[in-house]
Amino acid sequence: MPKIETSYQELLKLLREAAVLNSCASLLGWDEQTYLPQAGSAHRAEQLALLAGLTHDRSTSPRIGELLTELEQSGSLGDAESVLAVNVREARHSYDRNTKLPRTLVEELSRTTTLAQSAWVSARKKSSFAEFQPWLEKMVALKREQAEALGYSGGVPYDALLDEFEPGASSQEIAAAFAPLREELVPLVAAIKQSSLRPKVELLTQRFRTEDQKHFAESAARAIGFDFEAGRLDIAAHPFCSSMGPGDCRLTTRYNEHHFPGAFFGVMHEAGHGLYEQGVDPAAFGSPMGDAVSLGIHESQSRLWENFVGRSRAFWQHFFGAAQQAFPEALTEVSLDDWYAAINDVRPSFIRVEADEVTYNLHIMLRFDLEQPLISGDLQPADVPGVWNETFSRYFGLTPPDDAHGCLQDIHWSAGLFGYFPTYALGNMYAAQFFEAAQRDLGDLSALFARGEFRPLLDWLRKNIHSRGKQLRAGQLVQRVTGQPLSHRALLAHLHNKCDPLYGLS
Amino acid sequence: MPKIETSYQELLKLLREAAVLNSCASLLGWDEQTYLPQAGSAHRAEQLALLAGLTHDRSTSPRIGELLTELEQSGSLGDAESVLAVNVREARHSYDRNTKLPRTLVEELSRTTTLAQSAWVSARKKSSFAEFQPWLEKMVALKREQAEALGYSGGVPYDALLDEFEPGASSQEIAAAFAPLREELVPLVAAIKQSSLRPKVELLTQRFRTEDQKHFAESAARAIGFDFEAGRLDIAAHPFCSSMGPGDCRLTTRYNEHHFPGAFFGVMHEAGHGLYEQGVDPAAFGSPMGDAVSLGIHESQSRLWENFVGRSRAFWQHFFGAAQQAFPEALTEVSLDDWYAAINDVRPSFIRVEADEVTYNLHIMLRFDLEQPLISGDLQPADVPGVWNETFSRYFGLTPPDDAHGCLQDIHWSAGLFGYFPTYALGNMYAAQFFEAAQRDLGDLSALFARGEFRPLLDWLRKNIHSRGKQLRAGQLVQRVTGQPLSHRALLAHLHNKCDPLYGLS
Repeated sequence: MPKIETSYQELLKLLREAAVLNSCASLLGWDEQTYLPQAGSAHRAEQLALLAGLTHDRSTSPRIGELLTELEQSGSLGDAESVLAVNVREARHSYDRNTKLPRTLVEELSRTTTLAQSAWVSARKKSSFAEFQPWLEKMVALKREQAEALGYSGGVPYDALLDEFEPGASSQEIAAAFAPLREELVPLVAAIKQSSLRPKVELLTQRFRTEDQKHFAESAARAIGFDFEAGRLDIAAHPFCSSMGPGDCRLTTRYNEHHFPGAFFGVMHEAGHGLYEQGVDPAAFGSPMGDAVSLGIHESQSRLWENFVGRSRAFWQHFFGAAQQAFPEALTEVSLDDWYAAINDVRPSFIRVEADEVTYNLHIMLRFDLEQPLISGDLQPADVPGVWNETFSRYFGLTPPDDAHGCLQDIHWSAGLFGYFPTYALGNMYAAQFFEAAQRDLGDLSALFARGEFRPLLDWLRKNIHSRGKQLRAGQLVQRVTGQPLSHRALLAHLHNKCDPLYGLS
Repeated sequence: MPKIETSYQELLKLLREAAVLNSCASLLGWDEQTYLPQAGSAHRAEQLALLAGLTHDRSTSPRIGELLTELEQSGSLGDAESVLAVNVREARHSYDRNTKLPRTLVEELSRTTTLAQSAWVSARKKSSFAEFQPWLEKMVALKREQAEALGYSGGVPYDALLDEFEPGASSQEIAAAFAPLREELVPLVAAIKQSSLRPKVELLTQRFRTEDQKHFAESAARAIGFDFEAGRLDIAAHPFCSSMGPGDCRLTTRYNEHHFPGAFFGVMHEAGHGLYEQGVDPAAFGSPMGDAVSLGIHESQSRLWENFVGRSRAFWQHFFGAAQQAFPEALTEVSLDDWYAAINDVRPSFIRVEADEVTYNLHIMLRFDLEQPLISGDLQPADVPGVWNETFSRYFGLTPPDDAHGCLQDIHWSAGLFGYFPTYALGNMYAAQFFEAAQRDLGDLSALFARGEFRPLLDWLRKNIHSRGKQLRAGQLVQRVTGQPLSHRALLAHLHNKCDPLYGLS
């Protein structure tokens, strides 16, 4: 074997070992949210801390740095999209991120996160921003320090943080897509608010037995292609999708007997993430070619299956009969049209995680508007509630009654996750662009969905997105697959196509 | 801090890290048996192999050897039962076992185990000993090699293997307890077989709904003291109890709607193991003082709760009303006496895991009779079926119809677990001795059980056994707690007390 090949194989082996170790932590994390007995929490924390330390040691081992340098200097990375070049490029990207931070900062961040989260829980309960403010200040200061340590081009420290979740993205590019989206969403939301057509949302809060919800949601997830031989669905307080490695992808949801959409669209959403995980090359596990592109692209898959498929009229043309059979008392007398309108109810509300497909994006932009100046230093943490409420009122025409319904609602900032929020709205835009491209390639998807045929769409996503791993960055991927750069147009067209008829807009 | 204290703390830290890592593997192992999707098996094997390797590296690190030597030479181990002395003694015992084996032998054993188990599955299915014989030969040869590498006193290589499961025990001592037990069990079994009194075992195979079995078994496990805030009960093909560390002990069982005792006494048995795990000092986790004495002592706890408590008349005086409420269709017309007789049905049968409380011990002795000469070289693997069947017929008065019902029934030998079987019967004898001592200390336990009071017994076990960790070896422990060495007498007395009236024996 030539020397360079030996080095490459050694690199892959080291990356894989770190990933296998990390996948053990994934299982422990999943179990913590699903089945862990209460008294086991302290020991679980000790287990996870040990695994995190071991994984960190492995993924920052100087040997990886040596191998990367050797491969980079070997002259064998000519084709930037070759498996070798991609793996080296992205392994370098992670390695640099992992090794650039001083250990003291990493420890300080970890300690502060634990304390800030517990302060946030208490502050939100009392709706007391004053109680959270010192922690927000401390966290912002540490994240600014982190941004400096990581470095950034373009003079925008926020981009260094964004890079963790959406590698290669810039706030400038995101802002350029958000601005026109907001421009058109604000009047759309206002118009819907004034429409006299109101969906019968009370249909959704009839009684839907938990067991029946579970079976129905599982059958839908199976129908769109989620492989239950290689995955599961369990109950957790916070819905999520977690991959434990090849052949083992787990979804969670929570059931409310008097609220159908929560669990059902939650499962469609997490199954969308799961389809991505089940679509990457298992043989490439542990290497960048076997990993997802970014959080934004991951979210594009969950939103696509949740909203573009699961909330489509065509989907329910196929599934509504089964739903009526599963929930005869609730749905026998209900028409498909009323059901379709109800699950697409749009109305301004205070809480992001309860928001509909249209207003959701405005919730994200609001957070993006605040995060950038917080990290640049142009906005002081003390001013967050005022700016939040003022912006909220401009976007939604409503003012939050208190900070628990405003700037204290999300866990992200207390967890140090600055730069994470935009990926949710990026996901919506990417989803719309991908869906439009799939329609272009496959013809009328509605006709397929109405017949219960979801495989063509899944195959298209597998080929164009899932199987590519990290070969392309998100921006390149959307350009390659759709022929267009990131843009708000497809999402806006989709929302108008859906909402204009439902709400009698011109 | 004095130097020796620093070294001791370092030793404890290293032991604890290895134990935490091993507890991660425990969770992965539990998940493999309960919730792992089928397609995740290959990756799970990779995860477990990596964790096993890391745990092995840590528990055999030369630093542990250095610290042990330093502590042993420090002159601070004067009191052999002090925490320090116990931890050093038992850590040395494990360290030597782990480091004495050449790596090539460890790898060869691991490879052979995997292959032999899969050969055993196939051979048992076809009841073809010929197919398994070469694997048994290979395994026996490797275990003989292992015994030589480990070393043994008293000229009995089998003792080196026994030592893994029952540290400090000798086959001579076990044989001395088994011989008189067998002497009296064989005629007891024959007498029961000839008795005209037959329990109405058909009571046990009525319909018992799975959900109701689960709730009833959980309520019984809770009543005897198993803490479900620090544990769980799930379904697995093979019932087991597995501790994941402090505050997290998990039981499994399997349900058959038409066989009550399987799940119920399985849960009582596993809960008995669980009570032991929940009773060791959580602060001592990872050190020998926070660990169980031996498999035999562990089994004494499971058998005690399963048989001495769970199959007692007094237990059902308290629980039978609740059972009738839980299973009204099956039990309303049934008398307590008929129920008590049915759950204590004794009859010779071919399969160990289905055997009753009396014949079980003979199944074990048969295996012990074969294991010793296999390891000494006095019995050739080719001769196993003949010797098995001949011995079986002497003990049970029956001849196995084929090897699947004979020497191929157990997984142990294909898994390399020679020396494991005797701990099951040791557990029965220890259980009887402990129970007798508890009666002596606490007065009539039946009166307590009949009132649903199990806490005095549990507290007694906690104080005398659980909380002691590995302070004493099994033989010393039984001597200290009961005032007697290992003996068959208490078990035999218990079996006669139960069976003589049930089967009208004089």
